[in-house]
Amino acid sequence: MKKRIAVLPGDGIGPEVIKGALQVLDGVATRFGHEFETIEQVFGGAAIDQEGTPIPEATLKTCNDSDAVLLGAVGGPKWDKGDVRPEQGLLALRKAMNVYANVRPVHVYPGLEHLSPLKSNKVKGADFVFVRELTGGIYFSEPKERNEKRAVDTLSYTREEITRIVEKAYDLASSRRRKVTSVDKANVLETSKLWREVVEDVAKKYPNVETEHLLVDYAAMRTISNPTSFDVVVTENMFGDILSDEASVLTGSLGMMPSASLSENGPGLYEPIHGSAPDIAGSGKANPIGMILSVAMMLRHSFKLEKEAEAVELAVFETLQAGYRTQDIFGESGTLVTTKEMVNQIHFRMLEDSTSATLLEVYV
Amino acid sequence: MKKRIAVLPGDGIGPEVIKGALQVLDGVATRFGHEFETIEQVFGGAAIDQEGTPIPEATLKTCNDSDAVLLGAVGGPKWDKGDVRPEQGLLALRKAMNVYANVRPVHVYPGLEHLSPLKSNKVKGADFVFVRELTGGIYFSEPKERNEKRAVDTLSYTREEITRIVEKAYDLASSRRRKVTSVDKANVLETSKLWREVVEDVAKKYPNVETEHLLVDYAAMRTISNPTSFDVVVTENMFGDILSDEASVLTGSLGMMPSASLSENGPGLYEPIHGSAPDIAGSGKANPIGMILSVAMMLRHSFKLEKEAEAVELAVFETLQAGYRTQDIFGESGTLVTTKEMVNQIHFRMLEDSTSATLLEVYV
Ligand SMILES: [Mg+2]
Ligand SMILES: [Mg+2]
Repeated sequence: MKKRIAVLPGDGIGPEVIKGALQVLDGVATRFGHEFETIEQVFGGAAIDQEGTPIPEATLKTCNDSDAVLLGAVGGPKWDKGDVRPEQGLLALRKAMNVYANVRPVHVYPGLEHLSPLKSNKVKGADFVFVRELTGGIYFSEPKERNEKRAVDTLSYTREEITRIVEKAYDLASSRRRKVTSVDKANVLETSKLWREVVEDVAKKYPNVETEHLLVDYAAMRTISNPTSFDVVVTENMFGDILSDEASVLTGSLGMMPSASLSENGPGLYEPIHGSAPDIAGSGKANPIGMILSVAMMLRHSFKLEKEAEAVELAVFETLQAGYRTQDIFGESGTLVTTKEMVNQIHFRMLEDSTSATLLEVYV
Repeated sequence: MKKRIAVLPGDGIGPEVIKGALQVLDGVATRFGHEFETIEQVFGGAAIDQEGTPIPEATLKTCNDSDAVLLGAVGGPKWDKGDVRPEQGLLALRKAMNVYANVRPVHVYPGLEHLSPLKSNKVKGADFVFVRELTGGIYFSEPKERNEKRAVDTLSYTREEITRIVEKAYDLASSRRRKVTSVDKANVLETSKLWREVVEDVAKKYPNVETEHLLVDYAAMRTISNPTSFDVVVTENMFGDILSDEASVLTGSLGMMPSASLSENGPGLYEPIHGSAPDIAGSGKANPIGMILSVAMMLRHSFKLEKEAEAVELAVFETLQAGYRTQDIFGESGTLVTTKEMVNQIHFRMLEDSTSATLLEVYV
């Protein structure tokens, strides 16, 4: 398979983790006989410095002309006071790519339960995915108004907007443990009543997938009290923002969490959920796993290379099982390694034509 | 002091916990020489059975003519299929009383950390209060519309609505650890921008109170990752719903959590956050502490009887320290007791002219 990938290292630790991810991607190409053409472009604060805008036209064009986009991280104190901020580039990019579905796995790895603020028995085995609507809802609906005395925001959704994100969730659940948890506030909101109607409609087309409806306040409770009860959680933009950030804390390792933002037919955008962490940039302390697992998501969602995606995930899992730890996940035991050493360990395991089928089964 | 209190036992375990709370209130009257006149009225499902409406006029009149209202719990499967539901009575009551400020303490008691789904070291010492705007925002703003193709909700706030709730939070913080955390989504919402403006204005009048602004998604993370960093958290209706429910899970003991809903000049409404739990009604398993601590909140907020409120809280604390546990909080050790026995233990300690000043200091 031949694919063209836009690469946006961005700021802070972005370039380091991107470099690691590309090394692993190279391993995938070698082992499975694919060709991945990567085109690096400037983005974020780095682009402000070079071109005065966080998202230059050439960058945007490369993204739109590619099969997928890999993004490191953007932002930093250097650009906090300027007229234009790196984060605006991210919003503009998401909008330009029309990525309406944000997919965020929350996975507590065996042996890393101690990193969670929750008791180990609560999070052991937690492995679920948020599917958040990303281009509609209260973030974008009009009217939005404000004067001295009063302010107004609007939350609106069309049936089409809800249908496409809910279908995405059911598709995903079909390839996982076949359960969809839809989160709304249907006892209060008209948009949630429409949301629930659409979910019921879509559910009919997926008779093998179990459906449950949770109110958002109760979902915020169950994310803590019973996170292993979830498989795929689908919700609108604002609820998804709050709940997926809440859930990200469960793993205790933000540095290991990937994300995908998917469009209808265009390229997807893949990035770790962590920020640019300018304080540790260049020190070798960055955890490259969030970025590497974002590559696995790209292989799965944009290229339909499931076997390759699982190989990357298995290499990550085996490296963690072998005790290698960057500083953010280092505990009482294990081997402390740098970003580069962690990448090498994963790359090495990635290249092996792994015979550890047992491990694969344990993991998948 | 002489006060008139409307008492609405409601459904399920409501009557049991109300009975216990009134016994403790009687202890307060005896020990401190007050007179509390209580007028019981039918409410919720019980009122639907008797009068066909969850909130009969006589009940509402009694509430409005009182200095405070104590409410047990409402609802149950018996009324789930009817045209009118017990919960509608609760919404109607809140609206009629114009209680715009919902105050919910989140307190992890020393020795009960093991009940939390979080690691003990994370929640040890957590003691904060949510102040949630309860009568405005997206729950009530117009227009609200829905048809086959599209649905709309509106989120609006006036400066006055925001000002009164924010002032309530600063008043509360002044009598506590002097920190207000204001939660909004000011990077996206116009209502949040106005909210933040008002907080900055009000903060100027409270130079001894520290102010911090958190975005709602980050607040959902910090509620888990660092709950001891909060003192008073103030936010709008929907964010408050989600975050206060999320935080309630931290204690691991919903049965022990009280709440107050306060109006500008009229009576306040005091109720435990737990539901009517029809499955355990009459079995002696109900935890009366949420209701008893709601009485303490009534003494503090409606009657300004701080010493009396602290005496109730101390009696609860001492009873827990002595190892008494209802079933919901029973662990490896301690003495399992019924609702009535727990009430008796608290009442007994309440009546003592406690000389344990040391304990009081530890607790407060
Ligand atoms: Mg967020
Ligand atoms: Mg709620």
